[in-house]
Amino acid sequence: MSQSDSTNRQIVLAKRPEGAPDGETLRLQTGDIPKPGGGEMLLRTVYLSLDPYMRGRMSAAKSYATPVEIGGVMTGQVVAEVMQSDCDGFKAGDFMLAPSGWQDYAVSDGTQVLNLGNEPQNPSWSLGILGMPGYTAYAGLLQIGEPKPGETVVVAAASGPVGATVGQIAKIKGCRVVGIAGGPEKCAHVVETLGFDACIDHRAEDFADQLAAVCPEGIDVYFENVGGKVLYGVLPLLNPFARMPVCGMVAWYNLTGLPDGPDHGPQILSTILRMKVKVQGFIIFDSFPISLYQEFAREMTGWLEDGKIQYKEQMVDGLEAAPDALYDLLEGRNFGKMVVKVG
Amino acid sequence: MSQSDSTNRQIVLAKRPEGAPDGETLRLQTGDIPKPGGGEMLLRTVYLSLDPYMRGRMSAAKSYATPVEIGGVMTGQVVAEVMQSDCDGFKAGDFMLAPSGWQDYAVSDGTQVLNLGNEPQNPSWSLGILGMPGYTAYAGLLQIGEPKPGETVVVAAASGPVGATVGQIAKIKGCRVVGIAGGPEKCAHVVETLGFDACIDHRAEDFADQLAAVCPEGIDVYFENVGGKVLYGVLPLLNPFARMPVCGMVAWYNLTGLPDGPDHGPQILSTILRMKVKVQGFIIFDSFPISLYQEFAREMTGWLEDGKIQYKEQMVDGLEAAPDALYDLLEGRNFGKMVVKVG
Repeated sequence: MSQSDSTNRQIVLAKRPEGAPDGETLRLQTGDIPKPGGGEMLLRTVYLSLDPYMRGRMSAAKSYATPVEIGGVMTGQVVAEVMQSDCDGFKAGDFMLAPSGWQDYAVSDGTQVLNLGNEPQNPSWSLGILGMPGYTAYAGLLQIGEPKPGETVVVAAASGPVGATVGQIAKIKGCRVVGIAGGPEKCAHVVETLGFDACIDHRAEDFADQLAAVCPEGIDVYFENVGGKVLYGVLPLLNPFARMPVCGMVAWYNLTGLPDGPDHGPQILSTILRMKVKVQGFIIFDSFPISLYQEFAREMTGWLEDGKIQYKEQMVDGLEAAPDALYDLLEGRNFGKMVVKVG
Repeated sequence: MSQSDSTNRQIVLAKRPEGAPDGETLRLQTGDIPKPGGGEMLLRTVYLSLDPYMRGRMSAAKSYATPVEIGGVMTGQVVAEVMQSDCDGFKAGDFMLAPSGWQDYAVSDGTQVLNLGNEPQNPSWSLGILGMPGYTAYAGLLQIGEPKPGETVVVAAASGPVGATVGQIAKIKGCRVVGIAGGPEKCAHVVETLGFDACIDHRAEDFADQLAAVCPEGIDVYFENVGGKVLYGVLPLLNPFARMPVCGMVAWYNLTGLPDGPDHGPQILSTILRMKVKVQGFIIFDSFPISLYQEFAREMTGWLEDGKIQYKEQMVDGLEAAPDALYDLLEGRNFGKMVVKVG
């Protein structure tokens, strides 16, 4: 069943997952298309962004954002077309970046919505390189990582939309950049297309040794978005005064409790102490002022126009394919920024 | 055997400890008093400072400072009297703050030495509240912790020279201050004499629950100098944008490898991420400019004169008692800043 002008398909949270989400976690349901009231507009979803943070929204645990309710529509950023509008500054035919969630239609009063105009170039890019993932890479690397020319920057999930952007910006800033990715195809892409100096496959038995070999001068910035054995391989290589922006930890999102030992707590803390490391978590729209977003949008647009930044999307067809696509993403079976073409 | 004018007693590293140091780790030896050459002076040790960092110097592991060699004199800061001098700006009878180590006599050319004058008030204080421990507290709390009025600051090892100072400065800055210490006597001192708002005994079975109860609005700054279960009790209470200066981890100094699980790595990283925490290690004389030390000395002297800061020393008699005193310190069996009266 594809998008229609008579019903509204929604994907809702059916059950909170214990560990990895599965076929019982999300449910497709259909209903009436909502009717906008005075001062509101009706949005039709064109593209839906899939991102690792969505795993967190499925859990009831205390986090930085409110969890999705059981039976509630899954949250998510979309690019949507305005179908009808009684909302100042928004007219039918305009495209919007909006937090509509996993559904065909939504009503908005224009808050938390960005107007992309009626003929946007590459509208799906506002879900990726020109949107939240690109801005996350830019702000986390430059504001917390503070890379200096000649330093070594290591980026996990290097073929993903955040990691790929972190590494390319670090190259622009004159750093030596080492990526970490899953499998030879992704590693080849990271070096050949994205221009990293090296890329290590985290599935290799001797991953930690390989990482050490390509970081002969240690690591000055580690952009953390996976956790797990990648983090534990990085720790012994950190240089004095290293910086570690913490953006995600996808390897650990499905944990239901503390994993078996040994306890790496002492290793983490003693590295921070001995090497005078700064480790700082951030949530992109909480941690930085809006003025930085404007600077990012201007600078990134320039880099894309000049061909200094390459960007790869993986387009998934149809809203009904979104759950399995998200599960693939959480297991690292995506390649590039995952976007669902909804309508 | 006490200090004499005919021999030089030295305490040297006999054997690197595996785990906790013991009777085989350090050895007392005697030798001739060294003779100063041209441009040098002879120093006689009066007070020797004992500090947790000394455990690290006993190990060969990569650290922020060079380990003591086997057979080498243990490093340490002392207050010493100049016996004879051919060194410009230093004359017999002056008192010095010097890195002479665990021995009666040393020769110096004046580098890394601070002249305290010939009639210093409370000369041993320059090993504590007016020296490295006081400066560590001041710089770590104010530069990394950045406490704001009304925030909750938690300090481990609260009766020790660093922790006691951190908490008292935080009170001066208008914070609610909670200490953690070992045993009812230390806890009473922390609240009644140092003026903390509360102090929890980390030996209590229900330590984590007690800590949560006295931090009803969460924790904004945790000054980390112990690690272990204190850290793991603090993590669930951290507020968004909390700061954690990492100054030490005495609970873990004797580890010979990673302890048994569970692995708290995911808990540490997910707290940093979700709560946007900044965790930053520092080594006092590496991490901050000398201008900050001058600011500290001026401000701390004023606070002491005004009675806003209380300071407690535990004086140990005789160089031969220093090894056991250090082992007590590493096990938390000290009470206040530990200083050895050598001569």
